[in-house]
Amino acid sequence: MPELRKDPILGRWVIISTERGKRPSDFPTAPKTRDPKMCPFCPGNEHLTPPEIVSKDGAFGKQRSGAWNLRVIPNKYPALKIEGELNREGEGMFDKMNGIGAHEVIIETPHHHLDLADLPLKDIERVIEAYRLRMSDLRNDIRFRYVMLFKNQGEMAGASLEHAHSQLIATPVIPKRVLEELKGAKLYYDYKERCIFCDILRQEQQQGIRVVGQNESMLAIEPFAARFPFETWIIPKAHVTHFDRCDERTYSAFAAILKEILLKLKLALNDPPLNYIIHSGPLSDGYEREFHWHVEIFPKLTKIAGFEWGTGFYINPTPPETAANFLNEIDVSNYSPPVTVS
Amino acid sequence: MPELRKDPILGRWVIISTERGKRPSDFPTAPKTRDPKMCPFCPGNEHLTPPEIVSKDGAFGKQRSGAWNLRVIPNKYPALKIEGELNREGEGMFDKMNGIGAHEVIIETPHHHLDLADLPLKDIERVIEAYRLRMSDLRNDIRFRYVMLFKNQGEMAGASLEHAHSQLIATPVIPKRVLEELKGAKLYYDYKERCIFCDILRQEQQQGIRVVGQNESMLAIEPFAARFPFETWIIPKAHVTHFDRCDERTYSAFAAILKEILLKLKLALNDPPLNYIIHSGPLSDGYEREFHWHVEIFPKLTKIAGFEWGTGFYINPTPPETAANFLNEIDVSNYSPPVTVS
Repeated sequence: MPELRKDPILGRWVIISTERGKRPSDFPTAPKTRDPKMCPFCPGNEHLTPPEIVSKDGAFGKQRSGAWNLRVIPNKYPALKIEGELNREGEGMFDKMNGIGAHEVIIETPHHHLDLADLPLKDIERVIEAYRLRMSDLRNDIRFRYVMLFKNQGEMAGASLEHAHSQLIATPVIPKRVLEELKGAKLYYDYKERCIFCDILRQEQQQGIRVVGQNESMLAIEPFAARFPFETWIIPKAHVTHFDRCDERTYSAFAAILKEILLKLKLALNDPPLNYIIHSGPLSDGYEREFHWHVEIFPKLTKIAGFEWGTGFYINPTPPETAANFLNEIDVSNYSPPVTVS
Repeated sequence: MPELRKDPILGRWVIISTERGKRPSDFPTAPKTRDPKMCPFCPGNEHLTPPEIVSKDGAFGKQRSGAWNLRVIPNKYPALKIEGELNREGEGMFDKMNGIGAHEVIIETPHHHLDLADLPLKDIERVIEAYRLRMSDLRNDIRFRYVMLFKNQGEMAGASLEHAHSQLIATPVIPKRVLEELKGAKLYYDYKERCIFCDILRQEQQQGIRVVGQNESMLAIEPFAARFPFETWIIPKAHVTHFDRCDERTYSAFAAILKEILLKLKLALNDPPLNYIIHSGPLSDGYEREFHWHVEIFPKLTKIAGFEWGTGFYINPTPPETAANFLNEIDVSNYSPPVTVS
């Protein structure tokens, strides 16, 4: 059972893998296999992963051994485990609890050589539908307080397999970073009686200098205080707190703008490693007026060094206005994805 | 002039380099030269860097063109600039100010192929003396609120030059991460009326399972909630808030344990990239009872991915007790540094 330990000074929780502790010789990890025959996420290798999770409404996971477009599976090496009780306890002045949680993988396509951005729009919509269904479903487990959906693409962004996938972790506490964001949004609401994200949407649309894409439901911007070069946020124009509580039109618009932005980043930056994170409200009620779901995407172009670790400041060598100009020059209409053999 | 911009939700400051914004083609940076003849930190190439800063008491920087053991220079490409006024202003709902600060480099040795850990003890003491003198001196500039001393060693840890060096940044605000630590320590003090670091020292010495080194004045531990595998903290046994206000014996003891720990990490982990950060109290008075200076060292063995970015949680695959066992098996007494030609 992994252990959640709390830093006594900062209150930051750390997940310690107590079962299979890595020895010095386990670092750095060996280069990852790039041979689709060995890839556990490729069709034909389903036996290398845990059995898929089946969606209640039949959206995915029905054909266990047949052809599939998308699979959702429990992570074979979960950071947190689904079984057990929380069991909070002390060790002298220190605090710990069992590492309870859910850790799932969304395999986005059967094709090994395609990125999410390469997929046809309907396949991206299917991925987003899977996100929504899993988040909705995990709401029903009262042990969980938060569901974090994220993507690591490329080895430098922390991906251990190159086959296109996203991950989901459900946690028994609201993570520190999420709480900070909720509290920041609440502070603004208490002062202005307006949602800070709605205000950002208005100012960015008026100024125009950091907008990198929009459609009827979504706006994409380089944020004013971007931590990283080409950091991009996608924000729904309507005020909705929870990612899994939007209407159909919003999800279609989100799929379209996500594809467009990922393609622009791919073309502008030579297919960079990147992460994206869906920032949604907590599973419990509250923060409905103050918080507004959105996605933060950041290519991994710079290294985090001592200064950033020590201060929590970031040094961004590309002003967001400059990044926006570059992205707006990119034409994605002629892009064709790699040819797949099926 | 770099610009400090504040994230309106999190209150996090970001340093935006507005002057020489990096274009997409500037990422990733070209491999760094490893030829000492081209190294701006090597003897003979002093003209490639700004002139050195001279210490008032003659500890370093006297012989401008002669032989030297250590140089302190302004960073040629500073993240923050020393000249100018703060000029806080708004841009609609957003806040920014000029990027005022000091950014200096401590070149630790004239020898290109030696790490700090390879140096004789008296040379490490000279580096620590330079840290102290620079921090003391920057206290006198009333624009500054904090001095962060840190080291990036190895390209994966963010070093842009391999020649052994540390850096110092003085900032016009107390950085967010430092404030969190100060507040956490104060919360504990308010509740217990004891310094949390003094309590950690006591419990770690009693438990013994995470201790990786000690001498008369310093204790080295793998912290209970270590974020990273082989993360190591060095804490002075006596309660002192500010790094630059210790006595001579403490600095000697610090040099000795720093060398020992860096050598253990080097031998155990095959010379890993690493960062260390000196956590000292803020320049202004306050927090004298609550805060206790210390050093946090972390080898870069794992990658930070979407989950860590999104939650602020870390996943550490090596329990600190396991890491302590490995480090305690390492015998540094037979280590001999690379031979230098001079």
